[in-house]
Amino acid sequence: MRAQLGNDIALKAYREGRLPFPDGSIIVALHWKRVASDEDNKVFGFQQAFVPGAPVNMQVILKDSQKYAASGGWGFGDFKDGKASDQALHEKCYSCHIPAKATDYVYTHYAPFK
Amino acid sequence: MRAQLGNDIALKAYREGRLPFPDGSIIVALHWKRVASDEDNKVFGFQQAFVPGAPVNMQVILKDSQKYAASGGWGFGDFKDGKASDQALHEKCYSCHIPAKATDYVYTHYAPFK
Repeated sequence: MRAQLGNDIALKAYREGRLPFPDGSIIVALHWKRVASDEDNKVFGFQQAFVPGAPVNMQVILKDSQKYAASGGWGFGDFKDGKASDQALHEKCYSCHIPAKATDYVYTHYAPFK
Repeated sequence: MRAQLGNDIALKAYREGRLPFPDGSIIVALHWKRVASDEDNKVFGFQQAFVPGAPVNMQVILKDSQKYAASGGWGFGDFKDGKASDQALHEKCYSCHIPAKATDYVYTHYAPFK
């Protein structure tokens, strides 16, 4: 189960449909295990509800087109339990984002509400 | 697919485990249709990803223990497409929240990330 948060620079770019994201953009992904909610399902009357369980990891991308030129302009961070993951894991971040090159290596789309 | 947001008063109460929520607490629920993400599934290598699709409705609860004493202290609002829903729908809000009386009629739990 995931939630993505962005700073003002990233959100402005999302809202304007601006690509690539400007330097200073930060997007954070929070990942939890998902667990069924008996409490919610009882009210709905059928099995449909999942809610966040234990945290899995927190991931951060920060745009600096000069500093991180070798990885699409993004610096990648992965944290578990408040601690940064090791170098080996971080070296895998960028390659997994290459398929999203058309959206500046960002998978998360903006979910407007209007 | 759902996301819940709270104002500072509500979030402080969540973090402190304070019940009932104090007057002035506001919690907003955003509801979208969920749609499968082919883009994400392709990267994962299996079918697991859903993302927000079309907005369904926005729901708001506002705590005022005097003004809304008849409905557990909460005022309920439901909006679709930027417009308030009718009275008939609003009269159903509270009854659906009664099963959550033990958590001050609020279904949403806080999802800490630590």
